[in-house]
Amino acid sequence: MTTDSWVNETLYPAWGQRFRVVRELARVKSDFQDIMVFESETHGRVMLLDGVVQITEMDEFVYQEMLTHVPLLAHGDAKRVLIIGAGDGGVLRRVLEHKNVEKAVMVEIDGEVIRLAKEFLPGVAGDAWNDPRAEVLVADGIDYVRKAVDGSFDVVIVDSTDPIGVGEVLFTDEFYANAARLLSDRGLIVNQCGVPIMQAEELAETSVRRGKAFPDIWAFVAAVPTYVGGYMTLGWAAKDASMRSVGVDEIRARAERAGILGKTGYWTPEIHVGAFNLPPYISKHLPQKA
Amino acid sequence: MTTDSWVNETLYPAWGQRFRVVRELARVKSDFQDIMVFESETHGRVMLLDGVVQITEMDEFVYQEMLTHVPLLAHGDAKRVLIIGAGDGGVLRRVLEHKNVEKAVMVEIDGEVIRLAKEFLPGVAGDAWNDPRAEVLVADGIDYVRKAVDGSFDVVIVDSTDPIGVGEVLFTDEFYANAARLLSDRGLIVNQCGVPIMQAEELAETSVRRGKAFPDIWAFVAAVPTYVGGYMTLGWAAKDASMRSVGVDEIRARAERAGILGKTGYWTPEIHVGAFNLPPYISKHLPQKA
Repeated sequence: MTTDSWVNETLYPAWGQRFRVVRELARVKSDFQDIMVFESETHGRVMLLDGVVQITEMDEFVYQEMLTHVPLLAHGDAKRVLIIGAGDGGVLRRVLEHKNVEKAVMVEIDGEVIRLAKEFLPGVAGDAWNDPRAEVLVADGIDYVRKAVDGSFDVVIVDSTDPIGVGEVLFTDEFYANAARLLSDRGLIVNQCGVPIMQAEELAETSVRRGKAFPDIWAFVAAVPTYVGGYMTLGWAAKDASMRSVGVDEIRARAERAGILGKTGYWTPEIHVGAFNLPPYISKHLPQKA
Repeated sequence: MTTDSWVNETLYPAWGQRFRVVRELARVKSDFQDIMVFESETHGRVMLLDGVVQITEMDEFVYQEMLTHVPLLAHGDAKRVLIIGAGDGGVLRRVLEHKNVEKAVMVEIDGEVIRLAKEFLPGVAGDAWNDPRAEVLVADGIDYVRKAVDGSFDVVIVDSTDPIGVGEVLFTDEFYANAARLLSDRGLIVNQCGVPIMQAEELAETSVRRGKAFPDIWAFVAAVPTYVGGYMTLGWAAKDASMRSVGVDEIRARAERAGILGKTGYWTPEIHVGAFNLPPYISKHLPQKA
C-alpha cells in the first residue's frame, strides 16, 4: 500500500525537499511554534518546526556529531558545556559521551519539543535525560545567558532554528556579549548558521555580530543530508584562535581519551580538521581578516 | 506575479526536491531519455534527464570543479583527457582551463543534450566547444572505449546519470577493463557514484567492479547542493595509489602551473586533499582494504 500524502518543507518559498508520509504522529501548536512529527518512508521519523525540518532519524548523527565533537575536542578540556535549544536531546547525548565532561546544562525554551522528542524520537537522546551530569531546563536561553556567572562554561553550543521567529534572539549582539562573558578563558561558542548557497546572509550577518564579542571568528562545514543545499555552516567564535588549527594527531588523541573514537558515523579526526577549510563560495561571506 | 507550477524531482520515489518554475524552456524526448530545461526561481536554469536534476546554473561549479580538478591535479601531468557523458559541456570547459591539457575528447551519446545545453545553458561550457584542443563526439562511450588505443589517455572522467537507464553500461566490468587498458601507466578514472545516504549500493557495487580492473580503489566527496542528501561520492580508480595522497602544497603548486588557482568557487588545495577523507557512514561501503 502506498499513500499520496506528502510533506513539503517550507523553509524557502520556491525550492525545498518533500517527504512521503507513512503516518503523522503529532501536530502541536506550542506557545512558540508549530511542531510536527511524522513517520517518513525514507528517513525514519522526522520533526519539523514551523515547516522546517529539524531532525530525521536517518541522518541526525551528522549534525549532532559535528555540532558537538568539533567544539569539545577543539577545546580539549571542556568540562562544563552549555547547550541552548536542541530540544530533541541529540546534542546533550553527544556531549555526555565525552567522559571528561562534568556538567551539561541544556536550556530549551519550548517544553513541547522535549516532550514530543521523548515520546516519538526516544533514540535520539537515549539515556541522556537521566544522566546525573545533565541539567535540563525549560527556559529562555537569552535570559539564562544574561544571568549566568562569568566564566562558568567552557563551550556553548547553540542548536537553534534559523535567525527568524523564535530563534532570532540567539543571534543578537547582546546574546554573544553574554556568551563571551560566561565562557572561560579559552571558551568558544558554536551555532548553526544555515546553508550558505541559499542563506549566505545568515552566515555573513551573524559572523559580524560574533566578531564584536570574540577575537576569533570563523565557521566550519558539515554536509547534513536533510539540511538540503550542500554544506551547512556552523559558526565559530573563540577567545583563542589556536583552537581551530589543532592537528589531526592531537584531535585523535583527545577523542580517544574522551571515549568517542570509532563511535561516530560522520566525524573523524581528519574530517574535524578539514571542516575548517571552507570553499571560496562560503568563505567570501565571512568578515575579512586583517 | 507568482506561479503555482512546480517540478518535483523523481529520482527517489518517496523523497526529493522540488523547484518552483518560472517558465519551461524545453521538453524533448530524445532517442535515449526525456530532457527538460526550465527556469527556476532559485537556481537559475535547471536541466533534468528522466526526471533527475543534472545541472543548475547556480551550483554547477561545485560538481564540475571537483569532478575535473581533483583527478587532473592528482595526476599532475594529464595531457590527454577523455570525458564520457557531460553533454552540458561543463566538464569540458573545466578540463580545458588546465593549460597543460593538450587534448580533451568528449563522448556524449545524446546529441540532444548538447544541443539543448548550447541553446539554454550557454554559460556552462562557455567557449569550450570551439577550443582547438577539444574533440566532441556524439557517440556511444562504451563503443569508444572498446576501440580506443592502449595507453592513449591519462585521465578518464565519467559524468553520467546513475547506473540505471542509459548510464548503466558505464558501470560494467567491460567498461572498466577498457578504461584501464586505454589509460597510460599512471592513469586514473573518476565517475559519479551517487549520494550514499540514499544510494549506498551504487558506491558499493561499482567500487567492486572498479576493483577488478584497477589496483587502487577509493572515492572522494563533494557537497553538491542540488544532488540532495549530503555528500555525493565520486568514484576513484587508479593505477598508482600515491595519487590520492599528494599533499596540499604540491597540489597548490600544480594548480598554479595549470592556471586554475584562485579561479574556483568550491575547489581549493585543502578541499582537494580533504575530499579523500570519508565519513565512516560512507567508507564502510567501500571494499575492505587488505
